[in-house]
Order: sequence, then C-alpha cells, then structure tokens
Amino acid sequence: MPETRPEFALIDWIRTNLSSREADGILNGIGDDCAVLAGSESELLVTSDMLMDGVHFKLDEVSPERVGHKILGVNLSDIAAMAGIPRAAFVSLAIPKSMSMKTVQAIMVGMNDLASQFDVTIAGGDTNSWDGPFVANITLLGRAISKGPVLRSTAQVGDSICITGSLGGSIIGKHLDVQPRVQEALALHQNHNINSMVDISDGLIGDLFHILNESNVGARLDEAKIPISDAAQNRKCEKTPLEQALGDGEDFELLFTVPKKESEKLLSNNRLETPVTVIGEIVAGEISCEMGSRKYRESDIPGWSHTFKQ
Amino acid sequence: MPETRPEFALIDWIRTNLSSREADGILNGIGDDCAVLAGSESELLVTSDMLMDGVHFKLDEVSPERVGHKILGVNLSDIAAMAGIPRAAFVSLAIPKSMSMKTVQAIMVGMNDLASQFDVTIAGGDTNSWDGPFVANITLLGRAISKGPVLRSTAQVGDSICITGSLGGSIIGKHLDVQPRVQEALALHQNHNINSMVDISDGLIGDLFHILNESNVGARLDEAKIPISDAAQNRKCEKTPLEQALGDGEDFELLFTVPKKESEKLLSNNRLETPVTVIGEIVAGEISCEMGSRKYRESDIPGWSHTFKQ
Repeated sequence: MPETRPEFALIDWIRTNLSSREADGILNGIGDDCAVLAGSESELLVTSDMLMDGVHFKLDEVSPERVGHKILGVNLSDIAAMAGIPRAAFVSLAIPKSMSMKTVQAIMVGMNDLASQFDVTIAGGDTNSWDGPFVANITLLGRAISKGPVLRSTAQVGDSICITGSLGGSIIGKHLDVQPRVQEALALHQNHNINSMVDISDGLIGDLFHILNESNVGARLDEAKIPISDAAQNRKCEKTPLEQALGDGEDFELLFTVPKKESEKLLSNNRLETPVTVIGEIVAGEISCEMGSRKYRESDIPGWSHTFKQ
Repeated sequence: MPETRPEFALIDWIRTNLSSREADGILNGIGDDCAVLAGSESELLVTSDMLMDGVHFKLDEVSPERVGHKILGVNLSDIAAMAGIPRAAFVSLAIPKSMSMKTVQAIMVGMNDLASQFDVTIAGGDTNSWDGPFVANITLLGRAISKGPVLRSTAQVGDSICITGSLGGSIIGKHLDVQPRVQEALALHQNHNINSMVDISDGLIGDLFHILNESNVGARLDEAKIPISDAAQNRKCEKTPLEQALGDGEDFELLFTVPKKESEKLLSNNRLETPVTVIGEIVAGEISCEMGSRKYRESDIPGWSHTFKQ
C-alpha cells in the first residue's frame, strides 16, 4: 500500500530511488532504528557537517541539485582530508512546511549524483518538517587505508607545505560546486609519505593553524608561490586577490605537509589531474606563520568564524 | 593562547569539559577533519536524529539541560532498539546568534551528563551560528553484541508482543526526560531470544507497523493489557487515555516480540527494574493490527507525521 504520510512517503522514495541499497558492508540500510554496518579491521573515519539555508547556500538563488551536491561535497572533503575512503552517509533534514516534495527530491538527487560518483551509500538519516529554514546534516563514515589516516597533528619540522588547486573567491561558485579531492588524497597518501593534511574550509591561514596548533610547530610561507584562483583575480571586492586566497573559506582544496624530498618527487612527477604547489615549509619554534615581513598568530587569523553571544 | 573566535572557543570548551577525551576505541576525537575510531569485528550501529527548537522542545519553556538530555536520549533509544552498546556521539549545532555561550554550554552539560551515564564519548561534530532557531543533530555510533543486533524485520508468527513501561501522555514531561532503555534491551537480548524490536517514538500502533511492514506479518492486540501511563490517565485532553497510549509518540519504551515460551519465562522472572507487559501476538496473514472489533491498516495509523507540501 503506498504510504500517504509525507514523512514516510519521502523515506520510501529515498529507499527506492537513491543509492540507499544494501551494498557491500552495509548489512541493513534505511528502514530500522539504526543502520547496521559490517565490522572491519580498518579504522573508521567519521565526520559531520550541518548546512543551513541562508548561511551555506541560498535556496532562492541556486538550484536544489547544487545545494544537495554541496551538502555531501563538504563532508566528502573531510574524508579526503584524512586520505580515507568514503562509504556511508546519514542525512538528517529539517524541511520547511512550505517546501515542495519535488524540491526535497531535487536536493536529494543532487546529493545522490555525487554519492554515486564516490560509491557512497545513503544508509540512513532523519526527516523532519518545521516552520524554519531548510537545514541538512550529513554524518559521513569512511575507512582508512592500511597505512592509516593522515592527521593534522603529525607535521614535521622541515616538511614542505603543499596545496592542491588554487585559492580564493570560492563565493563565485566553487563553494557550491565543490570537487572533493578524495582520489587526489588517496593517491598522495599511497605514493608519498604525507605527514599531515587538512582541507581548506576556513581559509588557508586558518586551516594552516589547525595543523600548526595540533602539531605544535611554526610555518613560513612564500607569498609569491600561493596559487590564486581566477575567481579571486577577477573579482571586484574590497579584498586583494592575495587576501582572498589567504582568508576566504570553502575552497575545499587539500593543504598538506610532506618531507622536502617527497615534495620534489611530487612536483617533478605529479600524476594527479589537479596541480600541486609548494607554498612554504614547516619550521621549529612558536606556533605562528611568517610570510615576508608579516607574522600571523592565532589571534589575527583572517577569515570567517561562526559567532554568537559570549 | 586562549581562542577568541566564538566558534573555536566553544569547540575548545567542549574538548576540555565534556566526555570528549580519547577513550578506548576512540583513537582521535575532536580536533581533526574526522574522528578516528579503531576497527572492530562487531557490527557497527549508526543512528541520526535531528531536533529543532519549537518542534521537539521549547527552549523558552524548559531548561537547556533538559533539552540537551533529550537530544542525546532519543538517539540512545534508537541504539537500545537494536540491543546495541552506544559508544560515540557526533553533535552538530545550528546556534541562534542571539543565544548566549552559557545556554549552549548548559545544553551540552545536560547532554554530557547522560553521555557519561552510558559511557558515550562526544567524539566530534560541527558548530554553526545563524539567525534561525536552535537545531541539533546527533549521529550516535554503537556496537552490536556478539549475538548481533535485533531488527524490525524478523518478527515470527506466534511471537508475543511485549512492551516495557507504560504509554501515553509523554508530552507532560517524559518526552524530555527520556530514560533510554539501553540496559533493559541488552538484558532482554542476552537472556531471551528476542525476535524483533523497535522503540516507541511514533506511537504504539505506528511503531508496531514498522515491525509488521518489515516482517510482513499481522498483529492482534489485547486492548485491556495495554499499560496506560498515569500521565495519560490524568491528562485532560480530547483523547481518551487509551487513544493516547496507542497514538502518542515519544514514550521511548521498547516494543519487542519474543517466542511465547520466552515471554512466559520473562513474565515469571523479570529481573529488569522496568516492568514488561505482553500486549498481544504476531499472527499470519495481511499486514494489519486487530484490536477487539477494530482493525488498523497502514492508512489509518493514529499518531503524528512530519508534513510538507506534496
């Protein structure tokens, strides 16, 4: 009998139409109190990101498919930052009562297209309706490869600091059309001894400080080497292209450190489709980042932070 | 150096003050792109629930600690429904810009008190601010015991249908002060051959249909046996106490089916602190639930569903 209650009708539609089938390792997907995943010797990676209409995207300005793509994309980027293999997504939604089922389905289709591309199963979640704006949370599970995951806390003095792609001006569109660097991260981790890695979501300097803080090291950057995106070069705004590259968030590129010799090997023979640039090195001493005559400390990181009353 | 950006200051506070330490099996908790959990042969259980201010609780009417308790409690109840052992919680928040850090911390303290009680680590999550109401999502991971989890899809014809505690009127307070039946579920699963189980979140009839649909069986209930809570008995509302017990959601009791002989053993020697009542039996035939002269089918389930435009 077809389900007439909207909440359960949506769940039925997801079970029937999306990559929610029981796949290898997913013993029980949607349809019980919990999903059941097979045990595994590999380390389990878990990341969660919540995205809200009006903050991370604007549903009245962009297509619902692009919104769905971003919601999963930012989570895939976190699994990439550990050089993991993404596996199962758990999608929770707060749906405005005024939103049509068709729009919800289009968001899920955008999400599902990206899920299929990375062999991710939508294995569970939660659907709710309310009078507030659209909110989605994904918790994405992945597995580490046998070498283990790449952490933020293991940068070594003397490491080259590297970056994939180019930075800045993601607000023009890249923040929505995020191309998570999952394959790049796996190839880098397999072929080179990456010591630490993070994805650029808070801005280059902000995310670099995540590595510096957790590894208790400093950094020296070469301003001239920082790859600035065309979007940042061409955008008319109050910030210079360099300032955008340093402080804009949501580029979802990989920022990683490798022993200097590995970075030389990598540059001479980069088999990735994505360019890699060495932009500086990890140095001993206080947790700070020198670039030319400037010195950034924790208290003067450019970029964006969520704020609320203290 | 103390963190001055509110988002990161909150994360620091959580890392320092809550059950977010690296525990057995949690190799890396808060502080990287993903949490890293040790591999394990046991099956992994995953559940997600999103709760919104004004829908699942009212922050202007109840204490933030009770709200935090509920947010984790409903997720623990889902792990209980599989007879699993809860392990690690991932907490995503959308925080109104007008909310004080103190209120956020009180919500987290309420959550943490319950987490400690069940040996759950707050191992990661995401914090955001916005102009909308408070939203929280928890994804809770657990492990199955060696017998495996108890599913919805494995009820057998002839099984007794049992329930813990009493039902109805949870809106009076029980929906906030949920006591997840984690220990009860584990004891029942260890000592008796439970065939299927679900927790009561959508209402007795609605949740029974989750078992009936997934197991492709029918049910017969004995109206006189249904344990009605004092809250439902005493509450003045347009529904009779029985109607509340059948249709109200968020009782977070266990609804399970066991072979008849096991239910007799269980009733004669219930070592749980929570009462267990046999309220009916699983029967062959169409997916429906008979109770006296009434017959419920999927299309006339009492209770609540999230609604949005079709």
